Amino acid sequence: MADNGATTLQSRLEAAVGKAHILTAEAEMAPYLTDWRGRFHGHALAVARPQSTPEVAAVVHACVEAGVALVPQGGNTGQCGGATPDASGHAVVVSLARMDRVRAIDHDNATLTVEAGATLVAVQEAAREAGLMFPLSLAAEGSCTIGGNLSTNAGGTAVLRYGNTRELVLGVEVVLPDGRIWDGLRGLRKDNTGYDLKQLFIGAEGTLGIVTAVVVKLFAAPRSRGTALVAVADAGAAVQLLRRLKPVLGDRLVGFELMSAYSMQLSQKHMPALPDPLPGHPWYALVQADDSADTSTVAELLESALGAAIEAGIAKDATIAQSLEQAADLWALRENIAEAQRREGPNIKHDISLPVSAIPRFLDEAAGALTLAFPGLVFVTFGHLGDGNLHYNLAAPPGASADAFMANTERANRIVHDLVAAHGGSISAEHGIGQMKREELVRYKSEVELDLMRAIKRALDPRGTMNPGKVL
Amino acid sequence: MADNGATTLQSRLEAAVGKAHILTAEAEMAPYLTDWRGRFHGHALAVARPQSTPEVAAVVHACVEAGVALVPQGGNTGQCGGATPDASGHAVVVSLARMDRVRAIDHDNATLTVEAGATLVAVQEAAREAGLMFPLSLAAEGSCTIGGNLSTNAGGTAVLRYGNTRELVLGVEVVLPDGRIWDGLRGLRKDNTGYDLKQLFIGAEGTLGIVTAVVVKLFAAPRSRGTALVAVADAGAAVQLLRRLKPVLGDRLVGFELMSAYSMQLSQKHMPALPDPLPGHPWYALVQADDSADTSTVAELLESALGAAIEAGIAKDATIAQSLEQAADLWALRENIAEAQRREGPNIKHDISLPVSAIPRFLDEAAGALTLAFPGLVFVTFGHLGDGNLHYNLAAPPGASADAFMANTERANRIVHDLVAAHGGSISAEHGIGQMKREELVRYKSEVELDLMRAIKRALDPRGTMNPGKVL
Repeated sequence: MADNGATTLQSRLEAAVGKAHILTAEAEMAPYLTDWRGRFHGHALAVARPQSTPEVAAVVHACVEAGVALVPQGGNTGQCGGATPDASGHAVVVSLARMDRVRAIDHDNATLTVEAGATLVAVQEAAREAGLMFPLSLAAEGSCTIGGNLSTNAGGTAVLRYGNTRELVLGVEVVLPDGRIWDGLRGLRKDNTGYDLKQLFIGAEGTLGIVTAVVVKLFAAPRSRGTALVAVADAGAAVQLLRRLKPVLGDRLVGFELMSAYSMQLSQKHMPALPDPLPGHPWYALVQADDSADTSTVAELLESALGAAIEAGIAKDATIAQSLEQAADLWALRENIAEAQRREGPNIKHDISLPVSAIPRFLDEAAGALTLAFPGLVFVTFGHLGDGNLHYNLAAPPGASADAFMANTERANRIVHDLVAAHGGSISAEHGIGQMKREELVRYKSEVELDLMRAIKRALDPRGTMNPGKVL
Repeated sequence: MADNGATTLQSRLEAAVGKAHILTAEAEMAPYLTDWRGRFHGHALAVARPQSTPEVAAVVHACVEAGVALVPQGGNTGQCGGATPDASGHAVVVSLARMDRVRAIDHDNATLTVEAGATLVAVQEAAREAGLMFPLSLAAEGSCTIGGNLSTNAGGTAVLRYGNTRELVLGVEVVLPDGRIWDGLRGLRKDNTGYDLKQLFIGAEGTLGIVTAVVVKLFAAPRSRGTALVAVADAGAAVQLLRRLKPVLGDRLVGFELMSAYSMQLSQKHMPALPDPLPGHPWYALVQADDSADTSTVAELLESALGAAIEAGIAKDATIAQSLEQAADLWALRENIAEAQRREGPNIKHDISLPVSAIPRFLDEAAGALTLAFPGLVFVTFGHLGDGNLHYNLAAPPGASADAFMANTERANRIVHDLVAAHGGSISAEHGIGQMKREELVRYKSEVELDLMRAIKRALDPRGTMNPGKVL
């Protein structure tokens, strides 16, 4: 911060949140200027760490008057660079990390009011202490914040039953791009008094305002659980199995994950302590069913349904966890794929969704087209089949250079995303757009839809100072 | 349609949808110009009845060029006059009634694509024929349309488990105020590619565009059911009962209704065939639990939980339906209150929501304040306690003139709505704003929130021709 305008801004920021919480030294700012995967790097005038909503508002007011852009940041665990400032160095990063208080728990209303900077684990813990449950769960939960979850409409492992973050949010508090505070912290299940404005801020990746607090729904905690690994011949059989389990398990069905044998073997290779309970099949489904009733027979229900599916030839084999440890091991097979994959080297990754019914055909068509384009390439296919969400990743042919293979990213994206679009799918199921997928967004959205998005952005942020260069 | 401009418009409308489907005679238009309760009356240049999305777009284009406003209309069953044109006679009513085709059912994706003019019953039927279930259900379901349900974010009797209409919608097709068609008919459970634009049109009451088709979620149909009527001492005990049943029944808990003894007696008075299974208590809860598993013990679960609640002194008495007929009778006690009430004479009605935890105190405070203001008045209190939604209606003291009592509406609204606001509640839980509650909206929304709503309206409908005089 060299010139006078910057000095004035700095003194205003310091007046707003205290000198100790305005970082300007490069070394201090560094952790805020690069995303956790180290893929995006930016610069900033300063990093502000406000501790209250009025402090956030004061920071925004100071930046508005200085004509300086703002980049809201939660746990900095995003996948698409949405929380990393651009290279211009003209923005102020607003870290919500110090705003992490639980403001209220209302047991009879089954709601929790919490500030945006609380980690997802802290929110889960607060719900648990109240004898209830917050169902959002994802790999980064120890570091990501509830504000970031809301701003990216995070998905995770229980969407099949509980929905995305959007479905879990009842109210929000937002500092708007003009510095005004909108208190929309309502804890109501029904409210039809005009436009549902909170929906605008959910999934907006900080481009329409800074979310400072949120009211989320809580649920009865599960008291009985069934977890099974099921071997199937192909994705089509997995879809048939899902269709069969839905009426039998009803709302008990919380997770239905798909893994190719290769992706599961990657987990086993890098975490050799993990079991290999059903070797020799091409595809696996991981099924979890929960029930909050302690008189429940959910594991028996699951076992008999899987027995019938094997008899009908839909499933090849199945194993049901006999203990919480066994269940954790089965989940570890799924959850360690991303890390195992990282250790193998870089991949061309796709976070896509499709109508569940379209997944088998998509997989066939994509495999055909990609094998033709890149002979010998390796598919690392897994994901949340129950939600139609696949992590569809591509690795270099055995023996080939992984880094050289990455040069095919653009061409591979075109093949995959064109097919996704043809099947009515989405090129970003749960990770958002950030700065990474802006060009893809323009390529695949209709002009009408892009116009509507731009109209909303202009209406709420006419100066374009809120997280510029993200999403739109 | 007298002058030349109007003649041009009429010929354009006729060219767009066919002469037979442009109504201009007063007698033909009459059913479209008055709401079903006969409370709102308007005038119009014409009623257009398009049969396809391009026809709707052509109607909008014609009106845009003529500078004429549009009033979208579904089943015309709204409670707040949202589908009735104003008195100016300068608008064209666009009835979606002829757009009622089911476009697609995708069983493996559990989605249904249907045009806006299909009745809710037709949508339920189409789901049932596919072996699945669409859970939205409400009194007007034989006449109301799915487009109207979406535009008012309808609630109904199963919100506790399945959410409002908003939670049931995956995609929409909309004709925008400028006549362009936005095809957002996606059937995806996860899609984080920018702003979730469909949320804008859900609950907008036709002020941002005309919804022409929708993709909704389907569910496994229930195969076992438990229905119980429970006597409780007061609303506080009902809240305690709800808290107790939630973990035991989990997602099986579909409905939790509250009725005062007086409101239930009104049903019995006007429908004398209805039973009176638990006479002599001041309040009643109606509980329904469903399970899609046919091996389920949902009625036994409910019975044992209610037994324990009686033992704990939370419930006074309970009866469990032993047949579908008995269950239907218990529901009839609840569902006939509105009609019974209508036969008794006019009421001052409130469709409010509160945090569930705040309901007992709200009822105490409101009863105190209202009794002081209107000695002897009669409370007709019932509603969806599980969602925090009460139909809180007030009738004249016995012997007093009901019509004279209605003159107190404004004063009663102030007492009730001020208390609702003080407890963080909503003055319109499930019926919307329409033209009826516009002034109340301005009174109770913050300036910031009203500004945001107006900014959205201006951004999408800068000419203000889409359903003017509604909501904002």
